[in-house]
Amino acid sequence: MFKSATLLNFTTIFRAGDPLQTDAVVHPLDKLLFQEVSKIPPFEVIRDDDGVTLSLQMKPQDRIFGLGENLGGLNKRGKAYRLYAKDESSHTPEKSSLYGSHPFCMIDGESSFGIFVDYPSEIVFDVGFSRSDLLSIRIPSHNFDLYIFQNEKSTEIVREFLRLTGAPYVPPKWAFGFQQCRYSYPDASSIRSVAENFRKNDIPCDAIYMDIDYMQDYKIFTVDQKAFPRFESFVKEMGEQGFKLVPIIDPGVKVEEGYSVYEDGKKKGFFCVDKDGKEFVGSVWPGSTHFPDFLNPDCRLWWGNLYKDLVKIGINSYWNDMNEPAIFFTPAGLKELADQLEYVAGKEDLGKDPVDFLPKLWRWWHSEDTYKQFYHKLPQRSPVCHHDVHNLYGFNMARASAEGLRRLSPNERYFMLSRSSYIGLHRYAVVWTGDNHSWWEHLLVHMRMIQSLNMAGFFYCGSDVGGFNADASSELVVRWMQLGAFTPLFRNHSTKGSRQQEPWAFDDEALSIMREVIKLRYAMIPYAYSEFLRAVQKLTPFISPLFMKFPSERTKQCEDQFMFGDSLMVAPVHAVNATGRYVHLPAGTWLHWKASGPNSGDRKVLAAGDHYVSAELSEIPLFIAENKLIVLSKPQNYVGEEQIESLTVMGLVTDCASFTVIFDDGHSFDYEKGIVSTLEIEIAKQSSSYDARVKINQNPGVPVTVKKLHFEIYDQQGKVSKFEREVNLAQ
Amino acid sequence: MFKSATLLNFTTIFRAGDPLQTDAVVHPLDKLLFQEVSKIPPFEVIRDDDGVTLSLQMKPQDRIFGLGENLGGLNKRGKAYRLYAKDESSHTPEKSSLYGSHPFCMIDGESSFGIFVDYPSEIVFDVGFSRSDLLSIRIPSHNFDLYIFQNEKSTEIVREFLRLTGAPYVPPKWAFGFQQCRYSYPDASSIRSVAENFRKNDIPCDAIYMDIDYMQDYKIFTVDQKAFPRFESFVKEMGEQGFKLVPIIDPGVKVEEGYSVYEDGKKKGFFCVDKDGKEFVGSVWPGSTHFPDFLNPDCRLWWGNLYKDLVKIGINSYWNDMNEPAIFFTPAGLKELADQLEYVAGKEDLGKDPVDFLPKLWRWWHSEDTYKQFYHKLPQRSPVCHHDVHNLYGFNMARASAEGLRRLSPNERYFMLSRSSYIGLHRYAVVWTGDNHSWWEHLLVHMRMIQSLNMAGFFYCGSDVGGFNADASSELVVRWMQLGAFTPLFRNHSTKGSRQQEPWAFDDEALSIMREVIKLRYAMIPYAYSEFLRAVQKLTPFISPLFMKFPSERTKQCEDQFMFGDSLMVAPVHAVNATGRYVHLPAGTWLHWKASGPNSGDRKVLAAGDHYVSAELSEIPLFIAENKLIVLSKPQNYVGEEQIESLTVMGLVTDCASFTVIFDDGHSFDYEKGIVSTLEIEIAKQSSSYDARVKINQNPGVPVTVKKLHFEIYDQQGKVSKFEREVNLAQ
Repeated sequence: MFKSATLLNFTTIFRAGDPLQTDAVVHPLDKLLFQEVSKIPPFEVIRDDDGVTLSLQMKPQDRIFGLGENLGGLNKRGKAYRLYAKDESSHTPEKSSLYGSHPFCMIDGESSFGIFVDYPSEIVFDVGFSRSDLLSIRIPSHNFDLYIFQNEKSTEIVREFLRLTGAPYVPPKWAFGFQQCRYSYPDASSIRSVAENFRKNDIPCDAIYMDIDYMQDYKIFTVDQKAFPRFESFVKEMGEQGFKLVPIIDPGVKVEEGYSVYEDGKKKGFFCVDKDGKEFVGSVWPGSTHFPDFLNPDCRLWWGNLYKDLVKIGINSYWNDMNEPAIFFTPAGLKELADQLEYVAGKEDLGKDPVDFLPKLWRWWHSEDTYKQFYHKLPQRSPVCHHDVHNLYGFNMARASAEGLRRLSPNERYFMLSRSSYIGLHRYAVVWTGDNHSWWEHLLVHMRMIQSLNMAGFFYCGSDVGGFNADASSELVVRWMQLGAFTPLFRNHSTKGSRQQEPWAFDDEALSIMREVIKLRYAMIPYAYSEFLRAVQKLTPFISPLFMKFPSERTKQCEDQFMFGDSLMVAPVHAVNATGRYVHLPAGTWLHWKASGPNSGDRKVLAAGDHYVSAELSEIPLFIAENKLIVLSKPQNYVGEEQIESLTVMGLVTDCASFTVIFDDGHSFDYEKGIVSTLEIEIAKQSSSYDARVKINQNPGVPVTVKKLHFEIYDQQGKVSKFEREVNLAQ
Repeated sequence: MFKSATLLNFTTIFRAGDPLQTDAVVHPLDKLLFQEVSKIPPFEVIRDDDGVTLSLQMKPQDRIFGLGENLGGLNKRGKAYRLYAKDESSHTPEKSSLYGSHPFCMIDGESSFGIFVDYPSEIVFDVGFSRSDLLSIRIPSHNFDLYIFQNEKSTEIVREFLRLTGAPYVPPKWAFGFQQCRYSYPDASSIRSVAENFRKNDIPCDAIYMDIDYMQDYKIFTVDQKAFPRFESFVKEMGEQGFKLVPIIDPGVKVEEGYSVYEDGKKKGFFCVDKDGKEFVGSVWPGSTHFPDFLNPDCRLWWGNLYKDLVKIGINSYWNDMNEPAIFFTPAGLKELADQLEYVAGKEDLGKDPVDFLPKLWRWWHSEDTYKQFYHKLPQRSPVCHHDVHNLYGFNMARASAEGLRRLSPNERYFMLSRSSYIGLHRYAVVWTGDNHSWWEHLLVHMRMIQSLNMAGFFYCGSDVGGFNADASSELVVRWMQLGAFTPLFRNHSTKGSRQQEPWAFDDEALSIMREVIKLRYAMIPYAYSEFLRAVQKLTPFISPLFMKFPSERTKQCEDQFMFGDSLMVAPVHAVNATGRYVHLPAGTWLHWKASGPNSGDRKVLAAGDHYVSAELSEIPLFIAENKLIVLSKPQNYVGEEQIESLTVMGLVTDCASFTVIFDDGHSFDYEKGIVSTLEIEIAKQSSSYDARVKINQNPGVPVTVKKLHFEIYDQQGKVSKFEREVNLAQ
């Protein structure tokens, strides 16, 4: 019934039928010694004509973590999730599908294990929803790979999963800076004005996004010449001020004679086709479009090379949007809508139950049926219906883009942000969580989602800070910026017609708080970037749920606090009008920093346990773990503006603590070859003082520039010792 | 510019122009000595051609409480609210209008006061949204009454507001029992089966609702004879088992020749008219309908009498739904839709920006423009456009119904539940909060809303327990039932097509927990009913925010805990998968009861401060205030099934405590004439024991039946003393 084999450290693969290779997995499977098996322990397996259902009896205390980009709690129990990539613009709690599909989760109970179902179409994880004591996984197919990771430790399960699927890609260092987006800054002058506002208001910022309006008639790989005259020199002008421009690239290619991408793609047969082999047509932003067949390697190659003109003028940062793919409607759908005319024409009334009629009015729009109406031409296979490989589309678009960018600039790290994703995309790109709302509830959703995404390998991720849809209050944006400062992607974004959300869009108080928050983030970059590189190296989440670092029944309930790297716990305020919040501190004592900016905020030692901590609008509840350190630099206007010559080292040291700052060039792939320098800081508590040691590993290619360390070390009583050390760079 | 006068204890009225009397206010205004004034302190007043804007600079610590049925926090700051009654089926956080309009709020700051704007159309309260430091109230008219209640104490402000607008109506005692609803139990056999399930599963229940499907073609005041053959005997059959049937009554009267309500209303000229004086037509459930002109006193009289056939067969409990009024569309709207459908006919594409088209496709449905298309014929006035009195429609429908029911059964308390409301409806009816969702977020919304509704005089209120729209998990319904048990209206309700939500619809564990929760509620009725009558007498909220009883900067932040009567604080669990929660305990010590049912759950003494308390799925965190008492009876299958012969008295007594149980007949208006008996219980702590005194005030009409009191009294160390007292009924 299944074939099974063991691999890696504690993984078992179960193969059903002859699954299509999704490329989610990088570990070689071809040499495995498969055996026939009939069971997938510990699941009960039910096979029927249409697929397989795996079910598992859950104990009351069992928890399920994972499933990447999804709603529900951090513990996914109590909801059914349908993994089928969807352009879902309203993330209300009952929604079961969002943009990404990440069929990996961990069962935490008497016996713990992880499971990854490598299957690229709809999978339903019913996690105690239909029956509160049952985990049920429905795979509507007889062809899939399923992996079980048997280990008691969640960190080990995630690490093994990433051994299987690959280490996350590391974006350029500037991506740890602040990023500003809006649908849209439609022309050069509005972008210029945003850039000026940042510098005028003394607010660091590294990137400004270009949403769909920058294009000529929404034709990808075109730039509206009227809105952006002399675009190349504009890119240069922005670059000189430290701003990276990040244009959007959608998959849909406008059907328009004479438009080169359309003509070329059609000639080469790179577009998805309908059942008759004709190019499939769906309407998206540009109107009628064709959809590149990203599952075809030749198409990916072609697509990647389309970036060349933009790369040539200095753009190396992109976001791939609408790549579920989002399809507004098809000509047939529009006809179906028009057919309703017959039903209503001349009527004054719709009879007894007009609500029966309403769904018919909507069937044409964003219909999932569309996904059954076009096909991919895979090598050595007969055409595959899109529906059957649906979740791979965004993955392969981003992959095609990423591989192209790497070919075009082989030793320059691109920035590639994708909306849709599948397991494995993390090797090529990073993700954001799509079109959220300016709702307080979505601040909490954001917090939970970045933790779940990190478990699935998407270490670098984030949500639209301030909320994309709906109008935000200044308080909401301030509180969200305070969260965003501690998520890898720190991007403020909002939609057309909604209230502006840039830091200066509100009042003076909000502006001043946001300035300090962003500066705090920039001060944190040496810490965050070092921790990120280390997380990638060690294959452990950069943003980590509390329970992964401090496992206990109690921490498994903490969903609104998280670790930002290994030393720092963040507990953002996420309630309206709140001037404080509850926080749980696991084992040990903690240094509580009421941070407003890099140089402000009381520090206080708090014991393990539960606390209500005050947090005025300007304050972020931060907690440094006992005997761990963070480092802070002087904030800059943008990453790399100046050399970092001094660092502040902060921590609560009761025994000894160490931190290693990693330096690379921040923009090439040299770090992969080990071209990095390190600065190791060690502090040991003596009876009445601290012994501080500094060790440098210099790589001549990326010299350490730090000359001085300012220590700010607290003891258990909260007494601070401040001292300095020169760094001997000749070491 | 305005006329002003003082009235009551600390109220000032400001009158602009010649406002239409809304009947929100019962205090006589005709003898007031008005003076001309130009200001409305402390507001800055800006008058323009279209109306008046009042604005007030807010300090960072200022809070705004009130606004009745609305989203946002309990502290309303940070959002703009548009008070314009709306059939809003999706209460997402950005929504600014729900079903009721309650333009009363309290400003809590350096100087505190209340404000009530008596104006029956759209008012916008922008509470620090557009500008975070500004409260701005926009009244688009030059004719309104505005009241300022100047007092430092929130309880005093609410009391004065209720002196002005009248004491809340008291529903019959059975309404404190559990109620089961579903859209729909469409026929007698399905209702019978629900009733059987309650009794078979040993679950108390007092009422089963009849949603729209019980009618013949949705014609109000008809009963589908096929679905309900021999309806009168069915009502009797249910009544004998303790079940009250609660049919829905909508305002829209189906246009159908031969249908008596239609014919009669038309003949009498009681329907709203269009600009040409012809009966206005809008489509709702029955198709084309006319809308009774409830602002016309003659129409109200007629309408109230329409209940007579139902009353005659023993139904005295109703819900008035759709009375904003909800209007799906008009014939003109349908024509507009047809035009849009014609626009797409023959098209394959909608051009560059299809989303421009979407709003046009929806304009016909639930359009607010409709409210400008019909008129009311008020006595001594030229016809008034519905828009200008919009918020009064539901109020006057419920009032017409209530007055009719009182005429039809002068000494029998009716139960009248209304969806739409305006200030003043609380004198006639009670409210629920409309079509919420089975979302965890809406549990918190429910909690906040019942507190705000209580401030506005709606002491008896509640939300659809388990959530109306979307599918609920068993855990959500369990947790929501635990909240619902401590809200006056305790009604489980869900929509057509959604998962069933009755207590037996899930698993055995859920069933058993819900049984105990409902029994706990029934055990609480002697406490709750006594406290409710007392709240009405004293004009202080029955459900009270923590800050109103224990004012402090800290309690003003507590939005998810509330007082249920004067002795009991409830802190329901409202997070998915949580087995505990944080709770703030104000001054004094508290008896923490982890209640699962009337006879279970640990009791423990907790000090003032912040606590994390565990709460397994079956447990509700309850807290009895120091030196306050609650009483518990044996649960019954329905209210009044048996005489209450014993009570358990529970509390933490460190000094002395008292509680007075109020007995009336529970169903007549005799309580208004003082026909009540009371049982006063007093406990005084002695050095090593307690002194318990019992005093009875017997009214022969409603004899006290309690013969025995079981005391369960805790001291500060948590040591319990259990003892009994016989009640001397001859007293």
